Amino acid sequence: MGAAIEQAKKSLLEGGIPIGSALVAQEAGGELKLLAASHNQRIQKNSPILHGETATLEQAGRLKASVYRKSTIYTTLSPCDMCTGTILLYNIPRVVIGENKTFLGGEEYLKSRGVEVVVLDDFECKKLMAQFIQEHPEEWNEDIGEP
Amino acid sequence: MGAAIEQAKKSLLEGGIPIGSALVAQEAGGELKLLAASHNQRIQKNSPILHGETATLEQAGRLKASVYRKSTIYTTLSPCDMCTGTILLYNIPRVVIGENKTFLGGEEYLKSRGVEVVVLDDFECKKLMAQFIQEHPEEWNEDIGEP
Ligand SMILES: [Ca+2]
Ligand SMILES: [Ca+2]
Ligand SMILES: [Zn+2]
Ligand SMILES: [Zn+2]
Repeated sequence: MGAAIEQAKKSLLEGGIPIGSALVAQEAGGELKLLAASHNQRIQKNSPILHGETATLEQAGRLKASVYRKSTIYTTLSPCDMCTGTILLYNIPRVVIGENKTFLGGEEYLKSRGVEVVVLDDFECKKLMAQFIQEHPEEWNEDIGEP
Repeated sequence: MGAAIEQAKKSLLEGGIPIGSALVAQEAGGELKLLAASHNQRIQKNSPILHGETATLEQAGRLKASVYRKSTIYTTLSPCDMCTGTILLYNIPRVVIGENKTFLGGEEYLKSRGVEVVVLDDFECKKLMAQFIQEHPEEWNEDIGEP
């Protein structure tokens, strides 16, 4: 989760939405390897599809199905419907979520499809979002498709 | 659907996966306006997240929630879990699908969440995919997260 939180802070410094993510693979010997880490880029790249999780998979590039299937995705905020679907498309078996108080995404749907969901309720993740939303409510609503 | 099929053909000519999409808005006076059209870009841009539908939203750029909520997304192939989730995130109320014989995505889940789903069973859409899959089975499996 450290790499994901670093990405969230980086996004905030860039003037963007402070949500970060990291994709970690479990290698044959059981060792963990950071495949990619990135952050929401709605504001930075004028993108409606680069959320933390999708930006991280984009950064990782084209991977074999077998790699996704042995990986864990970390995200500082509960995954929206788009990111939930992306996790399901690639059969990522485990999602670790910084917090889901600011926004509750597709956690139940992920579980119903067999994905392991861990929520940390991390204070720093919550604080980053609370501060951003207070200052930029319109950008935040746009990011979750709300008017 | 014409604009989406044109994009699928364009992708094929580029050496890519022949799936295209188009986002059409209904304007205040009831007139229809093509907001964006694009295609799968896994091969062209080395991207795991640029499917036809997501590439089209990316091309459209940042839109107001109210625009998505009055739009229709056309796609030559039934939307995968990622694209299903993207449609739900932005509350796009209507999806027109070229065909779902090659691949059946999240149609039932879309309906359960209140999205109108129309399937055309279009011969040209099926033919484009049948030809691609025969020649490039590995790229196709990669695109749907299968080994
Ligand atoms: Ca799957
Ligand atoms: Ca929604
Ligand atoms: Zn998301
Ligand atoms: Zn898709």
